Amino acid sequence: MRAERLRIGIVGAGRIGRVHAETLAFGLPEAEIVSITDVDRGAARKVAERCGIHTVANSSQDLLADARVDAVLICSPTDTHAELISEAARAGKHVFCEKPIAHDLEKIDAALEAVAQAGVKLQIGFNRRFDANFARVRRAVESGEIGAPRLLHIVSRDPAPPPISYIKVSGGMFLDMTIHDFDMARFLIGEDVEEIYVAGGVMVDPEIGRAGDLDTAVIVLRFVNGVIGTIDNCRQAAYGYDQRVEILGSLGKIATENRYPNEAVVSTGREVRRDLPLNFFMERYRDSFAAELRSFVDAVLRDQPTLVTGADGRMPVVMGLAARRSYEEGRAIRLAEVAKGAVRR
Amino acid sequence: MRAERLRIGIVGAGRIGRVHAETLAFGLPEAEIVSITDVDRGAARKVAERCGIHTVANSSQDLLADARVDAVLICSPTDTHAELISEAARAGKHVFCEKPIAHDLEKIDAALEAVAQAGVKLQIGFNRRFDANFARVRRAVESGEIGAPRLLHIVSRDPAPPPISYIKVSGGMFLDMTIHDFDMARFLIGEDVEEIYVAGGVMVDPEIGRAGDLDTAVIVLRFVNGVIGTIDNCRQAAYGYDQRVEILGSLGKIATENRYPNEAVVSTGREVRRDLPLNFFMERYRDSFAAELRSFVDAVLRDQPTLVTGADGRMPVVMGLAARRSYEEGRAIRLAEVAKGAVRR
Amino acid sequence: MRAERLRIGIVGAGRIGRVHAETLAFGLPEAEIVSITDVDRGAARKVAERCGIHTVANSSQDLLADARVDAVLICSPTDTHAELISEAARAGKHVFCEKPIAHDLEKIDAALEAVAQAGVKLQIGFNRRFDANFARVRRAVESGEIGAPRLLHIVSRDPAPPPISYIKVSGGMFLDMTIHDFDMARFLIGEDVEEIYVAGGVMVDPEIGRAGDLDTAVIVLRFVNGVIGTIDNCRQAAYGYDQRVEILGSLGKIATENRYPNEAVVSTGREVRRDLPLNFFMERYRDSFAAELRSFVDAVLRDQPTLVTGADGRMPVVMGLAARRSYEEGRAIRLAEVAKGAVRR
Amino acid sequence: MRAERLRIGIVGAGRIGRVHAETLAFGLPEAEIVSITDVDRGAARKVAERCGIHTVANSSQDLLADARVDAVLICSPTDTHAELISEAARAGKHVFCEKPIAHDLEKIDAALEAVAQAGVKLQIGFNRRFDANFARVRRAVESGEIGAPRLLHIVSRDPAPPPISYIKVSGGMFLDMTIHDFDMARFLIGEDVEEIYVAGGVMVDPEIGRAGDLDTAVIVLRFVNGVIGTIDNCRQAAYGYDQRVEILGSLGKIATENRYPNEAVVSTGREVRRDLPLNFFMERYRDSFAAELRSFVDAVLRDQPTLVTGADGRMPVVMGLAARRSYEEGRAIRLAEVAKGAVRR
Repeated sequence: MRAERLRIGIVGAGRIGRVHAETLAFGLPEAEIVSITDVDRGAARKVAERCGIHTVANSSQDLLADARVDAVLICSPTDTHAELISEAARAGKHVFCEKPIAHDLEKIDAALEAVAQAGVKLQIGFNRRFDANFARVRRAVESGEIGAPRLLHIVSRDPAPPPISYIKVSGGMFLDMTIHDFDMARFLIGEDVEEIYVAGGVMVDPEIGRAGDLDTAVIVLRFVNGVIGTIDNCRQAAYGYDQRVEILGSLGKIATENRYPNEAVVSTGREVRRDLPLNFFMERYRDSFAAELRSFVDAVLRDQPTLVTGADGRMPVVMGLAARRSYEEGRAIRLAEVAKGAVRR
Repeated sequence: MRAERLRIGIVGAGRIGRVHAETLAFGLPEAEIVSITDVDRGAARKVAERCGIHTVANSSQDLLADARVDAVLICSPTDTHAELISEAARAGKHVFCEKPIAHDLEKIDAALEAVAQAGVKLQIGFNRRFDANFARVRRAVESGEIGAPRLLHIVSRDPAPPPISYIKVSGGMFLDMTIHDFDMARFLIGEDVEEIYVAGGVMVDPEIGRAGDLDTAVIVLRFVNGVIGTIDNCRQAAYGYDQRVEILGSLGKIATENRYPNEAVVSTGREVRRDLPLNFFMERYRDSFAAELRSFVDAVLRDQPTLVTGADGRMPVVMGLAARRSYEEGRAIRLAEVAKGAVRR
Repeated sequence: MRAERLRIGIVGAGRIGRVHAETLAFGLPEAEIVSITDVDRGAARKVAERCGIHTVANSSQDLLADARVDAVLICSPTDTHAELISEAARAGKHVFCEKPIAHDLEKIDAALEAVAQAGVKLQIGFNRRFDANFARVRRAVESGEIGAPRLLHIVSRDPAPPPISYIKVSGGMFLDMTIHDFDMARFLIGEDVEEIYVAGGVMVDPEIGRAGDLDTAVIVLRFVNGVIGTIDNCRQAAYGYDQRVEILGSLGKIATENRYPNEAVVSTGREVRRDLPLNFFMERYRDSFAAELRSFVDAVLRDQPTLVTGADGRMPVVMGLAARRSYEEGRAIRLAEVAKGAVRR
Repeated sequence: MRAERLRIGIVGAGRIGRVHAETLAFGLPEAEIVSITDVDRGAARKVAERCGIHTVANSSQDLLADARVDAVLICSPTDTHAELISEAARAGKHVFCEKPIAHDLEKIDAALEAVAQAGVKLQIGFNRRFDANFARVRRAVESGEIGAPRLLHIVSRDPAPPPISYIKVSGGMFLDMTIHDFDMARFLIGEDVEEIYVAGGVMVDPEIGRAGDLDTAVIVLRFVNGVIGTIDNCRQAAYGYDQRVEILGSLGKIATENRYPNEAVVSTGREVRRDLPLNFFMERYRDSFAAELRSFVDAVLRDQPTLVTGADGRMPVVMGLAARRSYEEGRAIRLAEVAKGAVRR
């Protein structure tokens, strides 16, 4: 499509829905939010007021039936994503959907099939690809600045674990938290993974173990092109949100540091210190949330492919399932064991 | 005044006017721009369209006569500031004015007198006080984290000199560029300066010298409380915008680094390197421009004193005049030689 | 024993023998070198002259028969270590031996048995334990500064691979290069490893592969106490010698950077850069070579246990054998599969 | 002269004498200490024993009369330097003398005259020129890496002031402490200073003021070639020894950081911190003390000019006298006001 302004409907007025609404309303003149809906009508109304959205739809069905809506943002709970994608596609709407599409490959495949049939655009909310640090690392790989990649190391640690109630419905750490790192690994190396080995454990809170999950893990990735990667995950880091990557290539390495609220260093009689890094993902990745929406709106308005496709949404789920199986069986798992046609060499 | 939303008029639709308009329109729901004007009507109209401003006034007089306008942002050229402040004050409007108020103390004093008579609020656009780094340094001083300050060092270097045509009307480096650092010095130490010594020269471009100005200087400040400060200024830094401060106190020091577009470090066979710091003041100080407006809007809506007063706008001009005289006469100049009652001990 | 000065004999006048001789001669007044020997007599004579050693022995046997010799430094090729340790022990000499003791556990066990029988002291040359950075990390773990360790990450990359001729006799990367990291892992966590998984490959030079070795690997370590560790090895890093560790604990993390020849940072119109890190292990670890000898001399003179025991020399070989098997079989290997009684829980 | 080994006599067995003796004895095979003397015979004997020096001379006269002595190291108190230089020169000995030569220009000129007459070599102990950081900065200037220098900033702060008893005989802060920075300024820019302005005060300890000295100062230097420099001095820095420089040139800048005992960074729930920088000048400048002696020994053995000449020893004293006068008179002082022929343009 070619339009001046993309008219958007938002399904889900929780935290991430609100963030996206504000970005669109106050930061993206190329887009206009025409409708919003949420099972919690009050939440939808509040966002609508703040962001000047004229319509609060009664349901996602109503919102999708609205002819003014060119594209939808799916910001509702994970278990509704796949079905909403299909419905939106059938309604001819372009779709931006938060990750993950689903915890189940069949549901994902059905949704992707609907998108393919409808010929609409789909972008998955792997916002970190749009972060200045990780985008810079990707450029270093793509441009050959560090030569052919050999080793990748991703550190991804949360400040604190979510409540046990959330953990129980989260799909497990690999599908809830590591899924971002699985996407990051594929994005940075520009290649698929074919085998995964996990060494993990419950080190933060035994309750997490009792809920059937783990909270700390090292995940080893073997890429199709021979690159070896590690992901270092922990649900808790006392000093806050820790998000770094390092790639060793044949001509050098590139490594990123965390982002900080300021660049001030204090030296006292006891130590040289600085304030803790940005602690909350909303702060740390603020710019990337805006950038991913800008990218989506651009892709639709200019009729270009989106930068994070449905296939990009599916593969991290395959990786998460393989990781889980590796954790359970104590051996390396080939992605082909988990999903047919998982990796095309 | 106590209102839900502050209704604002903007005089001047140039670069800084546009930035402020976007901040208000897209980032500050507590404010509403009701009118804008510029001698270049096209520029005003363009900003109005982008930011959804309904009225483009024919003149600043018209804008000030508009009863809906609670407060004005003065973003027009420096030589209009003082008179506009007075007119706005007489019209009962609160005023946010870009720095400097004027190059001439009499004009400044007349404007401040008008503000005092009208009882309106006035905030001067020393945005750097609202920067996360410098605000952190100020907190370290105020809280006693580094003890009693002894030495202050400000590095403030521009990426490249402005055109000679601009330099000729700029009021000279001290009133155009150093004025920010004079304000920063007073802000960080929380005290006035009583004597200034300058060692300066023309090192960047002889044309600047022929225009009667200098382009490189060290300015030594003696504060009333005995603290000694230095400002290190250059109109050109090959590596970009360099904005740092360091304070030595009795219990330690605090020092800030520049801000960078990313935290990626590349190691190759030749060197360990990172990308250049943020180069453009609009990028480097983006957040501080938003924060100063938020602070102004808050101050007016809650009827609190503004954080950068008219007196704060006047003193850096006194310091600039003293610096210029020191440069010309090759000796330390007491501020009292330049302005009566310059410093109250 | 209690003596004023420890009288030392050195077997082996190659690179490391020379370094140790200079340390003893010029930096350790508590020690005196009374004899040196090498199959290359000229080499021994050269070191003797430079360091003021009066006796150049005809053979290690002669040196060990010298009654003046209290202790020997074994700096000869690896395949002579185990037998020389036994001979020295039987001659009643204390022993400092370069790593590894042998590539073969039976030989190691025989040597350790001889040491135990003779009641002499034995220290293995894992010098990195004495490096200021790694010693600081160990202190952070021991003191509880970062709480209970959860994840360990060791980066250990050489500037360039050794010649293929050396690789063929090196015992393989795990016993030649990673062995230092295996020791470091045990030293830093203060605990043994029970299982090892390796993902490795030939990425630097296919000749290394043809010689039956690998050049790049990620080694996952599971410690007895549940900690998970990774070692990131590469035989080649374009930017030089890369030696870092990071530990995540329940209360925080500690991470070390490389050491640099200077702390100068250059900012130009292209980048912000610094010189490459110390490139050569002799420079990077200079102080640690001196510190390990000082520690050995102290331990003997004060009759204290040495800080790197025979058991500390044996376990990294076990780990290397397990790593090799994991690489060959593509599965995690428990140390107990490789050596009886490998780990005492 | 051309010799295999330089035979050295040391006058003064205090702290710096001991350091130099150990460097020569244990680290410089090209030199041999043949004699040492000190008014405190016990001190001399102790160093002689530790360093294997066979002769403890009764007096500096005896030491200078010793025909075996090729060169002397003058490590006695400042007020003896000038006379000892003259005596040594008349005895035909090459001289390495600690800074400053004297507090008095006439005495300095007499000593330099004696050296010139005798044709012996003289090196002054400005060890910091041999520090890896400052040498790197000098290379950046010399090689044109940062273009033509414009601004120099030296930070030089001591961990704590010396005892008042020492301050009274020290010649004042400018001749005792800043003298190193005056030399550094000349060394880094490769040019002489022609005017000095000082803003200083007593901020650390009022006792220092009562002793007629100051403890904190900013010193502005105008170089003959137009470069402007600042020295930031304080007798006390809570966080330890602070020794940094920064130069802005037409093509970039170079800046050095302090040196640290390790490169470990600890992140906790409160802050990101590292240990304090090297605190004691003996540690911080350890390598430079060895390097300056190596340079002196080389210069004599190869009959090359020394790298820190008598003129280099004189000029910082002139600068110190000018600084003192500026502090007293509150105005910029041209070096020509203090010393005839101070600066040759």
